[in-house]
Amino acid sequence: MISATELQEVFHSEIPITKYMGLTVRHLSADAITVCAPLAPNMNHKSTAFGGSIYSVTVLTGWGLLYSLLSDETRDAHIVIFESNILFHLPVKEDFCAVCRIPETRAVERFLRVFRKKGRAKIKLLVQIITDDGIAVSFQGTYVAHI
Amino acid sequence: MISATELQEVFHSEIPITKYMGLTVRHLSADAITVCAPLAPNMNHKSTAFGGSIYSVTVLTGWGLLYSLLSDETRDAHIVIFESNILFHLPVKEDFCAVCRIPETRAVERFLRVFRKKGRAKIKLLVQIITDDGIAVSFQGTYVAHI
Repeated sequence: MISATELQEVFHSEIPITKYMGLTVRHLSADAITVCAPLAPNMNHKSTAFGGSIYSVTVLTGWGLLYSLLSDETRDAHIVIFESNILFHLPVKEDFCAVCRIPETRAVERFLRVFRKKGRAKIKLLVQIITDDGIAVSFQGTYVAHI
Repeated sequence: MISATELQEVFHSEIPITKYMGLTVRHLSADAITVCAPLAPNMNHKSTAFGGSIYSVTVLTGWGLLYSLLSDETRDAHIVIFESNILFHLPVKEDFCAVCRIPETRAVERFLRVFRKKGRAKIKLLVQIITDDGIAVSFQGTYVAHI
């Protein structure tokens, strides 16, 4: 398994805008990930977090968890976002973190089984930004992993 | 009505990351808008456009068209994205532009009528990125405008 620091290095070196955004990987384990960003470089006209930056953080949070999961299988997997839905429940008024937990065991097992067999599989992940006021953002993304 | 240059200035001054992204408003008229970005600052690990940057450009394309539409009504309107869905059909391999056309007349009339009466209204917009290979990205966003 890769470490949070290694994943952050992947983001910064391969997707340059994440460096500008100040994106950090705060936590990474086999079943969960937390990715954070400061408000300042990601601010909008209302002094809250810009929806585009919020989307970037959430889509990478799910991507990072899959990258970590597949890093035990192969280093040759490509992971891309195929479709996603994002709901902005509340404005994000400060530095923020997005959290993604691995879905139920059966979904992951199916994903890995199909990936090993066909070299291509998809999986749906839920990513959330939770603030002191409650769930601020819910992101649901369908990712495709392929060799 | 505001000009493309004025809208671009709004983006750059109020959402700093758009300057880093190299975002430009190429065209703005009463019924359509085109917003573009170069590939280089928005690149991902596969040397195609990063999904987060694509989302940022599409969400601002719809936002810009609404901002322009409402600038004839009032300068006090707040426009926020509430919910959106984005489909990545094809990778974006070069500088790209997102296009949004005003929806059918009746939907806009209803939106403006509700906004004038209640000071709050919502509208759904479709934004697309079209490349030489066809439609690469389809974004559908529900925006809320309020006083």
